[in-house]
Amino acid sequence: MATTIRNSPHAGQPATEETNMRFSISRANLTRVIGAVSKVVESRNTIPVLSHLLLSADGKQLRVTSTDLDITATASTEADVQASGTICVDAKLLGSIAAKAGADSVELSLEGDKLTVKSGRSRFSLATLPASDFPTPPDGKYDATFDLDIAALFAPVQFAIAVNDNRKFLEGVYFHTKKGVSVAVATNGHRLSRHVGESLPDFKGIIVGPKTVSLLPKGVARVSVSEQKIRVEQGDFTLTSNLVEGEYPDYERVIPAGNEFIACADKSDILKASDRVATVSGERGSGVKLTVASGSIALSVRSQVGAAQDEVQAEYSGEPIEIGFNAIYLRDALQVFPDGQVEIALNDGMSPARITSPVAPLLDVTLMPMRV
Amino acid sequence: MATTIRNSPHAGQPATEETNMRFSISRANLTRVIGAVSKVVESRNTIPVLSHLLLSADGKQLRVTSTDLDITATASTEADVQASGTICVDAKLLGSIAAKAGADSVELSLEGDKLTVKSGRSRFSLATLPASDFPTPPDGKYDATFDLDIAALFAPVQFAIAVNDNRKFLEGVYFHTKKGVSVAVATNGHRLSRHVGESLPDFKGIIVGPKTVSLLPKGVARVSVSEQKIRVEQGDFTLTSNLVEGEYPDYERVIPAGNEFIACADKSDILKASDRVATVSGERGSGVKLTVASGSIALSVRSQVGAAQDEVQAEYSGEPIEIGFNAIYLRDALQVFPDGQVEIALNDGMSPARITSPVAPLLDVTLMPMRV
Repeated sequence: MATTIRNSPHAGQPATEETNMRFSISRANLTRVIGAVSKVVESRNTIPVLSHLLLSADGKQLRVTSTDLDITATASTEADVQASGTICVDAKLLGSIAAKAGADSVELSLEGDKLTVKSGRSRFSLATLPASDFPTPPDGKYDATFDLDIAALFAPVQFAIAVNDNRKFLEGVYFHTKKGVSVAVATNGHRLSRHVGESLPDFKGIIVGPKTVSLLPKGVARVSVSEQKIRVEQGDFTLTSNLVEGEYPDYERVIPAGNEFIACADKSDILKASDRVATVSGERGSGVKLTVASGSIALSVRSQVGAAQDEVQAEYSGEPIEIGFNAIYLRDALQVFPDGQVEIALNDGMSPARITSPVAPLLDVTLMPMRV
Repeated sequence: MATTIRNSPHAGQPATEETNMRFSISRANLTRVIGAVSKVVESRNTIPVLSHLLLSADGKQLRVTSTDLDITATASTEADVQASGTICVDAKLLGSIAAKAGADSVELSLEGDKLTVKSGRSRFSLATLPASDFPTPPDGKYDATFDLDIAALFAPVQFAIAVNDNRKFLEGVYFHTKKGVSVAVATNGHRLSRHVGESLPDFKGIIVGPKTVSLLPKGVARVSVSEQKIRVEQGDFTLTSNLVEGEYPDYERVIPAGNEFIACADKSDILKASDRVATVSGERGSGVKLTVASGSIALSVRSQVGAAQDEVQAEYSGEPIEIGFNAIYLRDALQVFPDGQVEIALNDGMSPARITSPVAPLLDVTLMPMRV
């Protein structure tokens, strides 16, 4: 008598671990690991598996992985694994289900090609994709590894990253060492922000794209870099990303070293005054004129809807200077400094200005003037 | 020798009150009156003056008026008027300036056709339009006037207003009296919400459009109605609006009176379960199936992305009934009821359901079933 296909364990789909994965996990842990990796997932994907998470249950833990092909994030947490296995499931869907789960514990099990999710009285049956569909980047070698609060180093330069620029190499933070000290720089050609950090072993400078920058975990992390990749590990979270290709320009030439006229004023005072006068900016990116003179900085904007003037107290003993800036660039530049005094170093009304602060000696922002 | 035109006081623009309006006002009062009327102003206007506010300074007060031609709002507040006058100025611009004003007092004065706004060290010069450009609706007669918390009466029916419906008369709240009692009703043909209020003198029912509904001041107000208009006054704020034209349908025929099978369950329980199962809704407006049986209501959704089930405790002693609803309509309907028990009165799986609550005896929502 012939054995029926159904009874043969080797017929049809190969019996893999996927067919019986089963684990239970606390709702808090499940939402945490999904939350940690979900920002990598793009909301629109032409490749279906990129909207999925890869779940891997093994030993006593669940590992969740997301990727957009350039960036891969992984987070792990403890789980009560009854049967190990791997499977891909829609990231948004599983995230919502975890967030709304009715009980403190969530049970996940693979039944055929459906992932069953149970919590309290709720029960979900979700479509899946095989784990083998999930793109896993090749393991690379790294040239240097060190501990660094990389998010804090990048934070005050991030705003200056170029957007939609033909010079793709400007679309990221230039992370490098200079005489054994870490430096982060970003510029779009009209503004440049530089933040110096702690001592690091030398490595060839890399350019880290804006999405990767936004995903960096806060606090000290273990950072590994090569000419192709950056990896950032913190606790049970790992972020691996390709880099922006290209050679970063010699940014130091842009930063004015000899500006001798220095106006010193309260950062918040300038921000508020600038925000007020910018009210009459007709369109985005309009210019604000600064008139720097003994004792004060006058700010003014003129557009088709009206004119506005304001004034802030300043220490200044140089020649009177009139200089215009893009109002949004001025605001962005001031906002990265801590509250307190800022120093605006000027040469004349046509040359770049350099903003520094005695409260943040490792940071400086260079702003190109704008005709107003 | 001929008198030059420039020297003649009567040449050029006529000298009106507008040319010397001048008043000062507290920043708090200025932002309050602008805030009170600004929501009437549409963000995009083909008629420039409709993006403006009409300022009228007279006696000891400033009156601010906005209009979109259908709705007119006015708010008044005390001001120190040195010279009375009227002028139109951009609503957004003046609102921003008031919100950001650097001092507690704001000084406004008309100089030629420019409005000068000063506060602290800031000074703005704004373009204006003459007050005569501002469209003022004709004063109408009202058929009835009464005191009513009209916002509270409309609140639980507002969600059911039809949107982008060819039946324009459904695009509003039907406000009328029934045997001397006020009633608000809204429906889009698939759901209907009715809220009964206090006793009122009889008047011919009116249909109040959604924008007007959203602008109603909270709390008891003096309401006047005619067949063309509604006016709502509260303190120094007045809202006047045209009505939606048309005859409201005989909505009472839609509300099922004889549904004998009544399931009683906790509102929040149903809402949460419904929200959970709706996670797998493939697209907006998908259906949720309720299986009402002794002791419980089971909820389920099935779509291309998966299936979901949940269950809530319920008191029910009728025949088992399966009925489908638009998940969003079910959620909206439940959300207008206060926390606590709701009663879902059913006839069968094909007939409208009526939701009521012992905690809100003056409110009922009718939901059409949906094939799921």
